[in-house]
Amino acid sequence: MIALFTDFGLADPYVGQMHAVLAVQAPGVPVIDLFHQVPDFDIRAGAYLLPAYTQCLPEKAIIVAVVDPGVGGRRRAVWLRADGRTYVGPDNGLFEIVARRARELECHEITWRPASLSASFHGRDLFAPVGACLARGGLPEGRATTLTPPPAPWPDDLPQVLYIDHYGNVIVGLRASRISGARTLRLGGNRLVVAHSTTFTSVSPGEAFWYENSNGLVEIAVNQGRAVDVLGLRLGDAVTFGDPA
Amino acid sequence: MIALFTDFGLADPYVGQMHAVLAVQAPGVPVIDLFHQVPDFDIRAGAYLLPAYTQCLPEKAIIVAVVDPGVGGRRRAVWLRADGRTYVGPDNGLFEIVARRARELECHEITWRPASLSASFHGRDLFAPVGACLARGGLPEGRATTLTPPPAPWPDDLPQVLYIDHYGNVIVGLRASRISGARTLRLGGNRLVVAHSTTFTSVSPGEAFWYENSNGLVEIAVNQGRAVDVLGLRLGDAVTFGDPA
Amino acid sequence: MIALFTDFGLADPYVGQMHAVLAVQAPGVPVIDLFHQVPDFDIRAGAYLLPAYTQCLPEKAIIVAVVDPGVGGRRRAVWLRADGRTYVGPDNGLFEIVARRARELECHEITWRPASLSASFHGRDLFAPVGACLARGGLPEGRATTLTPPPAPWPDDLPQVLYIDHYGNVIVGLRASRISGARTLRLGGNRLVVAHSTTFTSVSPGEAFWYENSNGLVEIAVNQGRAVDVLGLRLGDAVTFGDPA
Repeated sequence: MIALFTDFGLADPYVGQMHAVLAVQAPGVPVIDLFHQVPDFDIRAGAYLLPAYTQCLPEKAIIVAVVDPGVGGRRRAVWLRADGRTYVGPDNGLFEIVARRARELECHEITWRPASLSASFHGRDLFAPVGACLARGGLPEGRATTLTPPPAPWPDDLPQVLYIDHYGNVIVGLRASRISGARTLRLGGNRLVVAHSTTFTSVSPGEAFWYENSNGLVEIAVNQGRAVDVLGLRLGDAVTFGDPA
Repeated sequence: MIALFTDFGLADPYVGQMHAVLAVQAPGVPVIDLFHQVPDFDIRAGAYLLPAYTQCLPEKAIIVAVVDPGVGGRRRAVWLRADGRTYVGPDNGLFEIVARRARELECHEITWRPASLSASFHGRDLFAPVGACLARGGLPEGRATTLTPPPAPWPDDLPQVLYIDHYGNVIVGLRASRISGARTLRLGGNRLVVAHSTTFTSVSPGEAFWYENSNGLVEIAVNQGRAVDVLGLRLGDAVTFGDPA
Repeated sequence: MIALFTDFGLADPYVGQMHAVLAVQAPGVPVIDLFHQVPDFDIRAGAYLLPAYTQCLPEKAIIVAVVDPGVGGRRRAVWLRADGRTYVGPDNGLFEIVARRARELECHEITWRPASLSASFHGRDLFAPVGACLARGGLPEGRATTLTPPPAPWPDDLPQVLYIDHYGNVIVGLRASRISGARTLRLGGNRLVVAHSTTFTSVSPGEAFWYENSNGLVEIAVNQGRAVDVLGLRLGDAVTFGDPA
């Protein structure tokens, strides 16, 4: 299986052209549109969403992940094997959190280049062919390497709003399994306090709560409502745990 | 063939994660994104759209249908065989109209549960695996049952705006084959009257009309225009047939 | 491979129903959602995007292309073979530019009709089955013909904004390979002037430039910004090359 994870959205021709390449170069391999809505150019948000959204994939899955504002520049291309799963994409920090959490990790720079490489669409011209090559059991030309670290140190979990889904649920870059003790979530300092619940049906319609979502992340929701609107949240807003001061 | 019908939208990772499960558990079976835009949480709108949108599917199709505001609560999981087609999803009214119109019907409660079941995403963890099991010719653990009826009686057709497509065409929950005699459609009481036409090219550009759409439903359209804007309609607006009083 | 190119969007059930037909009638053939966001009803925009977006497809690809405001009326159905690739759809100008640029071209009117043909959805009922027939190596009933020319002459390239992608990049209907000499692009007469660059990373963040995009078209972009907003552009806006007067 090849799964795609990008900031390409679905409206444009980019995802379809990647599928066309994969259908030719990896015939018979299922190709999954896992997620194409990483906030545009937001490598860091993608880095924290990537391990959460890929953990339900089978161990042999190949993930072609592309959030690539530096395409056409000097950033390198890499592929990783992390606890069995294989990741292909730009060496710009997108794989930082997957790599950091891996128990077993190997990382390779991709030196292979296609005969025709556009300056702006390595997802189609470079990363999809490398994903197809790996899916066929091949190894792209390259060499062992380590990932380029992000410009500033990144924490193990990111206490911020990473994504807002179409229901208005608010996804936070914190693994729920790491939250212990204080179970009260605070937004905007002490402004808003949200209690924990296990699921939507445990709270009244219209009530806000946080819970561990189906990908292991902290998610803020409102039963039959839109948390993003009820609570006035935005991408990047800080989220903290603990009793109000 | 497994067809998906949900209110998940396409932006979020939910549909992709269902595809990943199906690719592993029903290898080689085509999986179709039939419709993911049921208005959020609107079980009743979904119930009337479901038979219309699935009638073009082959008789052996398996439809995994998920509009599930009660996920994680006490609503049961079911699968139905209705005139050859198989439906899998929550027992919350979503299958009420499919079942009512079926000439042959059998209904089963699903008692099987996966080893790991999230509280909020039974589409991925329960319904997709059951759909895959049925696609492989298996039978999920369960027992014969009847559907839980909706809280209030629902009519055979729903004279309301159910969905607005991206062209601005307005889809109504009435089967066109049930309209006889008066062919004039009224909106907002007597406020707006719309005549019948067989197709777009029979009316002038900019003119509103209603017609039987390709799924058998009454649809209000404007030739080369956006009916929703021209007529000022919204989801849930009432639609009636007959001569103005 | 069958690739779909339409103005259907992805929200509605139309694309899914085409996939269902193709899964049944062309089993085992990969079906690609190449592009579904041709501006609604805009045959001419589609005509110039079609050769650009399909040139990366393999030579044997079958493209089912539907932008069809005249569906249900008297426009004919056609299929073309243009330099190896096969196109199926309405004879309304959508294939004008593909045909004009082809070195080898044959064109056929489709006279076959399905047992059941809706008035409004020939994509599902007529063009998808014909695409499936061709993918299976069959030939639909028909006769050799030539395309109906568009109502007014169309230029070889269209110096207008054809599409705006989700990043806010602005795609113009000009092949970059045809631009020579003056490399300065002007918008709104002399109002705005945009210089050429080879790629995003060659300009400063926030700076506007034009470049040859991955499909060979002129594209106006802003490094890590939204060109459409920075420059205040709209679909249909004129674009010219040459030094300001």
